[in-house]
Amino acid sequence: MEAVNLAAKFSQISEHWQPRIVAQINDLHIKLAKVEGEFVWHSHADTDEFFLVNRGELTIEMRDGSVTLGHGEMFVVPRGIEHRPVAATECEIVMIEPVGTLNTGDAGGERTVADPERL
Amino acid sequence: MEAVNLAAKFSQISEHWQPRIVAQINDLHIKLAKVEGEFVWHSHADTDEFFLVNRGELTIEMRDGSVTLGHGEMFVVPRGIEHRPVAATECEIVMIEPVGTLNTGDAGGERTVADPERL
Repeated sequence: MEAVNLAAKFSQISEHWQPRIVAQINDLHIKLAKVEGEFVWHSHADTDEFFLVNRGELTIEMRDGSVTLGHGEMFVVPRGIEHRPVAATECEIVMIEPVGTLNTGDAGGERTVADPERL
Repeated sequence: MEAVNLAAKFSQISEHWQPRIVAQINDLHIKLAKVEGEFVWHSHADTDEFFLVNRGELTIEMRDGSVTLGHGEMFVVPRGIEHRPVAATECEIVMIEPVGTLNTGDAGGERTVADPERL
């Protein structure tokens, strides 16, 4: 019965693009990540993906446009939509997605984190 | 394709304990509410309930203890656990729960919001 403090959890993260699990609601994980630079283009056929920026600025590029999120801004990428998260400087993000969702979606590759750590 | 800005959405809310829907991920709604005072004791038999405090302080009383959340702190009330949210002064909260989840859970009563507005 303990609160999850976002700032305290983010302070434990040093690597970029390495999501960590901090909570679960039903069959979804709440994950935190620090990101910087360009991620890979990918999509998730079976699930929407929720992003909330805690610090910094994240651009979510999609094939038909993009959305840029600052502190306290959220966006849901609909299932099946190709997207690429990009951050010019280090950015802290909260993600919500079903248990087992891969960070690289259908793209796979070396940046896949198959089994995120719990913080 | 538009970001949801939490501060802008909260600025549109004046009533207390009136959740508003701002986004959806799969079968869950992201809801915002301003709260102050004591809510009713209730539980949700079929779903966990996610709380994140954006401003102020929220205490979630449960029969076996309580947790107090400040800005940037989150907590998941497990399904079936009786709880009562309490805020001594006005507090802004983000909730995540399945579409159709009633704010008063099994308790019902006059504070039930059966069909939350979208912001």
